[in-house]
Amino acid sequence: MSYSTFETEMAVRPDDIDFLNHVHSSKYFDYVLAARYDQMARCYGFSMENFMERGLGWVVKEAHIEYKRPLTLGDWMKVQTRVAEFCKDGVRVEFVIVNKGTGKVSSTGWCQYTLVALTTGRSTELSAEMVAKYSI
Amino acid sequence: MSYSTFETEMAVRPDDIDFLNHVHSSKYFDYVLAARYDQMARCYGFSMENFMERGLGWVVKEAHIEYKRPLTLGDWMKVQTRVAEFCKDGVRVEFVIVNKGTGKVSSTGWCQYTLVALTTGRSTELSAEMVAKYSI
Amino acid sequence: MSYSTFETEMAVRPDDIDFLNHVHSSKYFDYVLAARYDQMARCYGFSMENFMERGLGWVVKEAHIEYKRPLTLGDWMKVQTRVAEFCKDGVRVEFVIVNKGTGKVSSTGWCQYTLVALTTGRSTELSAEMVAKYSI
Amino acid sequence: MSYSTFETEMAVRPDDIDFLNHVHSSKYFDYVLAARYDQMARCYGFSMENFMERGLGWVVKEAHIEYKRPLTLGDWMKVQTRVAEFCKDGVRVEFVIVNKGTGKVSSTGWCQYTLVALTTGRSTELSAEMVAKYSI
Repeated sequence: MSYSTFETEMAVRPDDIDFLNHVHSSKYFDYVLAARYDQMARCYGFSMENFMERGLGWVVKEAHIEYKRPLTLGDWMKVQTRVAEFCKDGVRVEFVIVNKGTGKVSSTGWCQYTLVALTTGRSTELSAEMVAKYSI
Repeated sequence: MSYSTFETEMAVRPDDIDFLNHVHSSKYFDYVLAARYDQMARCYGFSMENFMERGLGWVVKEAHIEYKRPLTLGDWMKVQTRVAEFCKDGVRVEFVIVNKGTGKVSSTGWCQYTLVALTTGRSTELSAEMVAKYSI
Repeated sequence: MSYSTFETEMAVRPDDIDFLNHVHSSKYFDYVLAARYDQMARCYGFSMENFMERGLGWVVKEAHIEYKRPLTLGDWMKVQTRVAEFCKDGVRVEFVIVNKGTGKVSSTGWCQYTLVALTTGRSTELSAEMVAKYSI
Repeated sequence: MSYSTFETEMAVRPDDIDFLNHVHSSKYFDYVLAARYDQMARCYGFSMENFMERGLGWVVKEAHIEYKRPLTLGDWMKVQTRVAEFCKDGVRVEFVIVNKGTGKVSSTGWCQYTLVALTTGRSTELSAEMVAKYSI
């Protein structure tokens, strides 16, 4: 069994560039986050706002990235993400960032996210509805 | 005499949001910068890369902003900029950031940019070609 | 009548540097913000947390900056701020950022801050206690 | 054989905080980067500037992080890093970020850095001097 891959396009912003003249390494995680927010609303039909209305939020528990080819000023990218697997209180999401101009992979990696109660910060189980929405 | 206003659309990124749940105040300047880069290439036909090929870059000399209504997570904006006036070694650009969803003004302001030689950091005069390209 | 100037020292972080090899222009506002937070707690004795406990926060209404000499990788700075004047629902703070190594001014400017209720975002009057604490 | 662990103290900046009221996940990598820069100059005696004078720079090839306890507004941290192992053209650095106030671990992880020629971006071998300097 495997889950759908979704894609979000976005542009490098000039403030993302560091003194080595390419996108600063930690910004790639911000691109993944932006793509997930977009896809949660647009592709899964259960947005970050839907979680927050229920007093819930997502935090990153673990993250991993491999840098292949840097993005630079003026580049556009495709951020592809997919659910790799569920656990009781979270989900592992794999990502690939592709340079739209060259079609080549810029970076790959994954993030392990945990669902938490916003008031306590404690992890909480995904409901059946959430798992269903994200199992497409 | 007045110059053209150009517009760039972009989305708020989740990493732009601060602990007050709206876009962090300094990020609005990054939106203006991103819009100018886009418009330099797309609207004026003389891009940042064109300046850099000539050993030149732009630095901010002075900036001013008024915050009217905050942008928040999930918002899209229109960043409108126009050349207000030229001086020998620079240009004053006025901007308006409009919330695309509500049509209301989020912030207004201006930036005074100076053209500099990248190797020395010293200000340098705009060429006749540059003034012509940016006088539309 | 004039108010005290306070000073906070901090270091440029590598992620503050942009592709022109100096501190990115919008980051100077983040330095001012960091200095104010430090000084609110350490110098005025009425911290951001004290405001938040009362359901209040500060938002920037207007900001102005003049860039004199860029900070670069490895620099330390002194961020000096002082209350310039009070209004009913806010305060104008002037700042000077000094390069600690050279002793020269890197940038100057001011921020007009408005006190807001965190739940509504609406401006609210400063209490007599707040004015007293910040009138030193 | 094992290498020395060095430590750099720094404060959370208000602009590091995201809408979940704690330090934004990608910023932890920026703390590690800042700590390495400090330690390269102060502890190893072969600074980033020393590499750049030789036309060399460091890029991140791979990174991994586990988030244990979030840092929040006002926190100070100790960023501890150590060389875990060398390869021909790079080095693996392990890090631990400790909340200075509580003494508890906030996050742990590692970064695989590659030495590159700044003009070409191509990886290049560490010299004997570099290995010696970083083998303490």
